[in-house]
Amino acid sequence: MKPDERLIRSCRGESVDRPPVWLMRQAGRYLPEYREVRKDVSFLELCRDVERAVTVSLQPIDLVGSEAVILFQDIFTPIPAMGMELDFAPGPVMASPIRSMADVGKLRVPESRESVPFVFEIIRILRDELASRRIPLLGFAGAPFTLAAYMIEGSGSKDFGVLKRMLHREPEILRALLAKLTEMTVNYLSAQIEAGAQVVQLFDTWAGLLSPQLYREWILPVHREIAERMRESQAPLILYVNNGAHVVAEMADSGADVISLDWRASMGEAAQKFGQSVSLQGNLDPAALAAPEEEIQEMVRSLVKEASPARGHIMNLGHGCLPGTPVEGVRAFTAAVRALK
Amino acid sequence: MKPDERLIRSCRGESVDRPPVWLMRQAGRYLPEYREVRKDVSFLELCRDVERAVTVSLQPIDLVGSEAVILFQDIFTPIPAMGMELDFAPGPVMASPIRSMADVGKLRVPESRESVPFVFEIIRILRDELASRRIPLLGFAGAPFTLAAYMIEGSGSKDFGVLKRMLHREPEILRALLAKLTEMTVNYLSAQIEAGAQVVQLFDTWAGLLSPQLYREWILPVHREIAERMRESQAPLILYVNNGAHVVAEMADSGADVISLDWRASMGEAAQKFGQSVSLQGNLDPAALAAPEEEIQEMVRSLVKEASPARGHIMNLGHGCLPGTPVEGVRAFTAAVRALK
Repeated sequence: MKPDERLIRSCRGESVDRPPVWLMRQAGRYLPEYREVRKDVSFLELCRDVERAVTVSLQPIDLVGSEAVILFQDIFTPIPAMGMELDFAPGPVMASPIRSMADVGKLRVPESRESVPFVFEIIRILRDELASRRIPLLGFAGAPFTLAAYMIEGSGSKDFGVLKRMLHREPEILRALLAKLTEMTVNYLSAQIEAGAQVVQLFDTWAGLLSPQLYREWILPVHREIAERMRESQAPLILYVNNGAHVVAEMADSGADVISLDWRASMGEAAQKFGQSVSLQGNLDPAALAAPEEEIQEMVRSLVKEASPARGHIMNLGHGCLPGTPVEGVRAFTAAVRALK
Repeated sequence: MKPDERLIRSCRGESVDRPPVWLMRQAGRYLPEYREVRKDVSFLELCRDVERAVTVSLQPIDLVGSEAVILFQDIFTPIPAMGMELDFAPGPVMASPIRSMADVGKLRVPESRESVPFVFEIIRILRDELASRRIPLLGFAGAPFTLAAYMIEGSGSKDFGVLKRMLHREPEILRALLAKLTEMTVNYLSAQIEAGAQVVQLFDTWAGLLSPQLYREWILPVHREIAERMRESQAPLILYVNNGAHVVAEMADSGADVISLDWRASMGEAAQKFGQSVSLQGNLDPAALAAPEEEIQEMVRSLVKEASPARGHIMNLGHGCLPGTPVEGVRAFTAAVRALK
């Protein structure tokens, strides 16, 4: 079975010979070859430099044995064209955070094909490079709530107190911002699929900050709208919620084809409860790649077994690969999956 | 019903007129009166200054209507006497993190009555002050895994990569460290109860970093040992695990009298599944105290209803009160509980 076929069939819950494997943040600082490309440019420059972005996107195939390529880009790539200045220091910092309805009103919903053409050029080149090897290409976007979290708070935060205060005291501002970001996200993901992305993943890094009740009120409707509007694209949609072990039922109810679990979530429980209607992705703790090879093999076998009641399983981490991850651990991880019968 | 009776009966699952209420980190920077006491001393000095520590411990009773007092102290208070230097900058920073079995071997298990006598003096004075008002006094300790996390990592961390690498590659070092910290914790909590603490809470801030499987291997046995060894003290034990929505079943199985839930956990589900064998504490999102008063009242009523299948419920937050919390939100929270019939 070819890697593209294996991944897409797994997303749709069709039978495959074994789970496919890739890693979130597989193109990253843990790889010396990535650091080499990155050393002369800033992170933002790397995102906009088509040649370098293509190079680092492709590195994980041969260097660590990943079976899918994900576009190298940042979740904030489409944000400046909305009229929101930001910088990395090293985390994202907004020049003027969103604090009023007027601030939201000033935001544009750009046509991403015009505002960030380099993204689609990177995708077209990657798809071209990968075609002969039948390696699938994934596109991605940050989910509206996660983008809104940074845009309101002004930067990353432990508690996102400003965001949550707005949610409780001026919910109409947050609602308006989410609506604009949802428009933008649908446009951006659709354009990625048009350019050649075969599967797309929505990253909701901060949705797990909310209680199950607030998640159902604020997050689930946004995911459902995106899933609904992306359906005609035919490309499978993967939904990742960081720290979302408490909202797996809601993730499964989003309309996404695949839900990508944090390592805190029980894969076995998710497979039994929701595996008939959605495929599952994940969910090894990225820090576990520091374990000895035999232990990694054992963890992979155990995860595959836990996921077996599900209609499909894509092996991955429960979060992005950490900068200090030993390369041999990543190789042991992908090799263990390829060795499965 | 008197506040001490209400709290202790709630812990034990005996009938009460309504839930008691207090807040984690109720003596903290959100209170102007706390900041006033704190302004001339460092955090460490405040912990060791008996008079000031008593003052800030007592503030939340009259200022925000809390119905229990918790000893003002830091989870690291007993650590320096083990032979481990640390400073706050402002988070805890260890001068020489634990990285080898020899490092663990050098750690002492001090008799806390001798090494941190000021803690017990604070407790004795507080108990004395509170006796006439029948306000209950809680003691507390950081749980061994959380203390070990900082001692190994050397400071706070987003991913605790050094800690997790040790867990996977040199588990015997972590195991030896947890054993020493368990001894220390049992001694420290027992001495607090002897000095006058009527209930004690164990804070496991970082245990939620682990997958359910690793939690069962590394955390649950430690909690069980502490609960078992504290049983003869007769003082109820509350177990708090931050970000532990994925391990509520394991918390309920620890032997603690009360499990204190993160706001991500569903109170209703916990009450139905485990409420017959343990009492529940929590779990409003601290950030929700920024909501309008009527919304806070509604959230309190809703939480109480969700918790109603449980044998006991102590109203609290799902995490410590945030520095930016409006004081009127905290007052609205405690008032809403007192207004319950």
